[in-house]
Amino acid sequence: MINGLKKLGFGVVGLGRIGRIHAEIIKFKIDEAKLVAVCDISKELATSVAGKFGVKAFTNYDEMLKDPEIDAVVIATPTFLHKDMIIKALENKKHVFVEKPITVTSSEAKEVVAAVRRYSMKLQVGYMRRFDYAYKNAKKIIDEGKIGKPITFISIARDPGAPPGWAADPKLSGGIFLDMLSHDFDMARWLMSSEVVEVYVIGGNYIYEEIKAKGDLDVVSINFKFSSGAQGIIHGSRKSAFGYDLRTEVLGTEGTVYVGSNIDNMFSCGLKEGIMYQGIPWFERRFYDAYVEELKHFINAVLKDEEPLITAEDGLKVVQIAEACWKSVKEGKPISISY
Amino acid sequence: MINGLKKLGFGVVGLGRIGRIHAEIIKFKIDEAKLVAVCDISKELATSVAGKFGVKAFTNYDEMLKDPEIDAVVIATPTFLHKDMIIKALENKKHVFVEKPITVTSSEAKEVVAAVRRYSMKLQVGYMRRFDYAYKNAKKIIDEGKIGKPITFISIARDPGAPPGWAADPKLSGGIFLDMLSHDFDMARWLMSSEVVEVYVIGGNYIYEEIKAKGDLDVVSINFKFSSGAQGIIHGSRKSAFGYDLRTEVLGTEGTVYVGSNIDNMFSCGLKEGIMYQGIPWFERRFYDAYVEELKHFINAVLKDEEPLITAEDGLKVVQIAEACWKSVKEGKPISISY
Amino acid sequence: MINGLKKLGFGVVGLGRIGRIHAEIIKFKIDEAKLVAVCDISKELATSVAGKFGVKAFTNYDEMLKDPEIDAVVIATPTFLHKDMIIKALENKKHVFVEKPITVTSSEAKEVVAAVRRYSMKLQVGYMRRFDYAYKNAKKIIDEGKIGKPITFISIARDPGAPPGWAADPKLSGGIFLDMLSHDFDMARWLMSSEVVEVYVIGGNYIYEEIKAKGDLDVVSINFKFSSGAQGIIHGSRKSAFGYDLRTEVLGTEGTVYVGSNIDNMFSCGLKEGIMYQGIPWFERRFYDAYVEELKHFINAVLKDEEPLITAEDGLKVVQIAEACWKSVKEGKPISISY
Amino acid sequence: MINGLKKLGFGVVGLGRIGRIHAEIIKFKIDEAKLVAVCDISKELATSVAGKFGVKAFTNYDEMLKDPEIDAVVIATPTFLHKDMIIKALENKKHVFVEKPITVTSSEAKEVVAAVRRYSMKLQVGYMRRFDYAYKNAKKIIDEGKIGKPITFISIARDPGAPPGWAADPKLSGGIFLDMLSHDFDMARWLMSSEVVEVYVIGGNYIYEEIKAKGDLDVVSINFKFSSGAQGIIHGSRKSAFGYDLRTEVLGTEGTVYVGSNIDNMFSCGLKEGIMYQGIPWFERRFYDAYVEELKHFINAVLKDEEPLITAEDGLKVVQIAEACWKSVKEGKPISISY
Repeated sequence: MINGLKKLGFGVVGLGRIGRIHAEIIKFKIDEAKLVAVCDISKELATSVAGKFGVKAFTNYDEMLKDPEIDAVVIATPTFLHKDMIIKALENKKHVFVEKPITVTSSEAKEVVAAVRRYSMKLQVGYMRRFDYAYKNAKKIIDEGKIGKPITFISIARDPGAPPGWAADPKLSGGIFLDMLSHDFDMARWLMSSEVVEVYVIGGNYIYEEIKAKGDLDVVSINFKFSSGAQGIIHGSRKSAFGYDLRTEVLGTEGTVYVGSNIDNMFSCGLKEGIMYQGIPWFERRFYDAYVEELKHFINAVLKDEEPLITAEDGLKVVQIAEACWKSVKEGKPISISY
Repeated sequence: MINGLKKLGFGVVGLGRIGRIHAEIIKFKIDEAKLVAVCDISKELATSVAGKFGVKAFTNYDEMLKDPEIDAVVIATPTFLHKDMIIKALENKKHVFVEKPITVTSSEAKEVVAAVRRYSMKLQVGYMRRFDYAYKNAKKIIDEGKIGKPITFISIARDPGAPPGWAADPKLSGGIFLDMLSHDFDMARWLMSSEVVEVYVIGGNYIYEEIKAKGDLDVVSINFKFSSGAQGIIHGSRKSAFGYDLRTEVLGTEGTVYVGSNIDNMFSCGLKEGIMYQGIPWFERRFYDAYVEELKHFINAVLKDEEPLITAEDGLKVVQIAEACWKSVKEGKPISISY
Repeated sequence: MINGLKKLGFGVVGLGRIGRIHAEIIKFKIDEAKLVAVCDISKELATSVAGKFGVKAFTNYDEMLKDPEIDAVVIATPTFLHKDMIIKALENKKHVFVEKPITVTSSEAKEVVAAVRRYSMKLQVGYMRRFDYAYKNAKKIIDEGKIGKPITFISIARDPGAPPGWAADPKLSGGIFLDMLSHDFDMARWLMSSEVVEVYVIGGNYIYEEIKAKGDLDVVSINFKFSSGAQGIIHGSRKSAFGYDLRTEVLGTEGTVYVGSNIDNMFSCGLKEGIMYQGIPWFERRFYDAYVEELKHFINAVLKDEEPLITAEDGLKVVQIAEACWKSVKEGKPISISY
Repeated sequence: MINGLKKLGFGVVGLGRIGRIHAEIIKFKIDEAKLVAVCDISKELATSVAGKFGVKAFTNYDEMLKDPEIDAVVIATPTFLHKDMIIKALENKKHVFVEKPITVTSSEAKEVVAAVRRYSMKLQVGYMRRFDYAYKNAKKIIDEGKIGKPITFISIARDPGAPPGWAADPKLSGGIFLDMLSHDFDMARWLMSSEVVEVYVIGGNYIYEEIKAKGDLDVVSINFKFSSGAQGIIHGSRKSAFGYDLRTEVLGTEGTVYVGSNIDNMFSCGLKEGIMYQGIPWFERRFYDAYVEELKHFINAVLKDEEPLITAEDGLKVVQIAEACWKSVKEGKPISISY
């Protein structure tokens, strides 16, 4: 499966912003990986990216999957395409790194889980925060027991603006709970080492007409319970006026860990009006190192035949949580989740 | 009603920590006020405080109310005593500044509201955050429209430790939602200029056995809705390992205001392990100026025959919210509030 | 010397901003002190302040000194008046709390030192930072050896604007090195437990014409050496556009302590342009508690017949340093200081 | 000079930490550049790095310079080797990107300046802070006049520990003023748009015996003057207990800009003892983007035949400043600099 140079051959499908980041990282940053091909339905995009990296260009995913040099694929297409693309890859004996979220629906995700098992391949979902130094610090400190028993998880996630294109359509992306806040639910499960078993949501449309028109929400407040008995709160907004505002904290019986900030403390300017800071950089820069680390981890898992840190089952669970959130919005009450 | 020196004569009843602060402020910090007497069921406490300030000592509240030099009382006794003491004061034509919360139950609070109207006296409830410079800044900026339409209120309130004595008994204090978090609900109503119309609570006992034994909770997560359609989140904990952790933020369509911090940025020490900060000072110091300002405001309202900023009706409403929180805990579902 | 109530009787002379703060603190905040009289050459000011506090008013300092109820004086007049007023007080067997700096010149300060010894009275200079919690933390941590050997002291002191009136005239105030930065030199000596033995100054006039006209400087950078071999840096500016900017740090071989900040982290507002903080509050508020503590310390020193923390000798030494700074400016070279 | 693909061919000499970073960036991050060869006197290092990047390996610099595919060299060898290597490159008609500082002595630097002119090639010195977003923000705001006239530059630069190997020997590296603080002098000149015309230094040995043994200093405080009349302060230490502590500020008549922080505000942990932060990441990570940008700038300057932002003359000037610092240490007085 591994070529002579012990490098894992990769094909990347979906060459939007995040797909190109993955391609660049595979090409340049990881010794054990080799970028073999890129694929996009836009021939222009596929050709230009392939040219830049000196690799093969495909516009037909099925054809790329036949390439024997490719051991694994990175799927960075819109979410609604994930399920079929994952299963095809598995059928072609390609390992799969799939951008978050794994699928739009839990029934799709369950198909994926079954396929991963059936073909005995590796699949990792791209919740890169698990590989960010600050979140990893939090995990380490919590797991070492330094903050005692973790009793509340709080995460605030605010984007600078509305998502572009297909992601604004909850039928294609899963909407705010899945497309945006599944990062926070993944963190919740991981940092607390516990499952989310009930959610209650207050959500609304306050800002973007286009989001409302598609049936998605732009601001949501989620209260939830963990199987451990701990409490959870997530607040998400598709807008933060000054830019990205992303903060997570875990309260324990003996301490509190804080991850993230609303300000970049590397620069400020004090004028008559006060001292002005800027928000933190948008995710390509804030999380670039985490994008590298998550792929290194995946490659290592494949090469050593180990379970990746974020499996298809993990991917499934956050889809189930997101579905429970939507149900809570519709029914106006807390919704239990059974996995 | 005002003596020749145009000073409002005050009697302070309840000489615990906060009662003594009020007495000191009236004695020393406000030109328009005169401390006439202090009262406590502990003769020793009453005598010592009266001696310190050179004023009369009472152990019997009814007797103090007969003192013609007294125009107004500050009631700083345990909450369960508030209702009767307020009504007696009003009957004796004394204006009332009552520590928060106004009463333990909404039926008591309604009696108080009726009595205030009946006797045409002034009553102010001691939600001092409304007089703190930082919260006032937030209010001003929100009301000026600088952050656009306010769409989410979030407050995190964590005390350094369990409340002492009677306050740990929810029958006497109203429990965590009233004794502790009514500050946050008062802020919610005030900053958002909107009523809380529905609450959903996840609460539990994680830390203090004595709190559990009394039937109170020690950590709660509250999701709520405003009449404006905005969302609210309050997280309260009776413990924060490093001390007081109190932060409020309001997200608007065009900006976000942040009040409070977990760290005191005036001192830090960097050693091999990292750079260590301390938490912010406990309320006597963090809010001392606000305690002064709230009494100045009350005195001004009395002297000018104006409505105080925080009325008995305001006091009633947060009791109603707290009762709805308790109901949500018991029934495990969102509870609507009708005022 | 102490009256029956064991209260130290005080007269306050000089009723500007800081004089009124001292009077208020003596009147209201310290059990062991009694405000007996206030004195100012302005009859109007003396009368109004005396009326507010219910104490005697004097316009003639010599007369006030004859008052047998007065055990100690607080001298808060312009610096150029200090020497004579201190010595008269000592002659009249009054203890002296004198606002910083002790005198304008070192020859005056030496007269004061001699007089304090001759009359065996107590004298304390008002370098209140020594009583501020943050600086005290720093002192404690340094003295405990937690940062190892202290090797560099750095202090940045920037005022919001030019000093008013007499303080802008270096002949009356000692100028920027004494009137403003003697706080920092006092901190340097105290935190480092070492004497300043050489200074080199770069100073100039960049901002205020009126300061230049009087022969003072508005921005200075000072490099200095301690007798311990440690290094020191002080930067002072009479202007900081957004307000008070006051920060001190001590680098040690094993750690660094930081005191102060340019921002008040209790409030911020994030709009499209960024997140805006305000500067820290001006000294009346930042250091109010320290003003209380320094007077408590002085009173305690008198009552217990102990040496105050900041003696006339301490006051003299910072005047000597300031004089060396002026000499360095004039000669353009490093100046050694011998005490 | 540019190959058919319009890529500038690069050879990198000196494969220590920073040399490998440059090689990686040229290989992977810049479309207009092509890594052709790497060179190190260690055959093992040269071979392994060349293997990793798939390029030619040299152990003999002179041979590498003969490679016609190479248009430009990156010189990342110890400083004392720079002068000869730069001149050889220029003789061979290679453009030069040289790590800071340009040379150990100003007489060497002058030879380099002359050679650059003689051969009409481009040379850029690696002061990467000019390409960091935070310093660039500062420069932009200052140049726009937002802080008024810049009147004081202050920079604090503290490394986590002593430099390894040759860099601890001032004869080979120029010592602390050149090896470490020439970054700060470059910033001083650039941000203030003015020349450093006089320096006064207090320096000493407090921490590292090995640094003292080599004749270098480990902690220094520098006061300096700009030709504009502005003031400057630089404090440098070879040790900061918790890690890298790097902060720069410019005070202007109408505002102050701040760059850098001692803490990474993305993570903290509050326990009983307080809230702990970590220092900022060491330079490879803090400045990685700046390393990319400086090479992009250099390549662009070569391709467009423009003057690079940091020329040999800039490199010379900071060597002259460093020499003046050494002279000040030796003579114990301020030293004027004439360029």
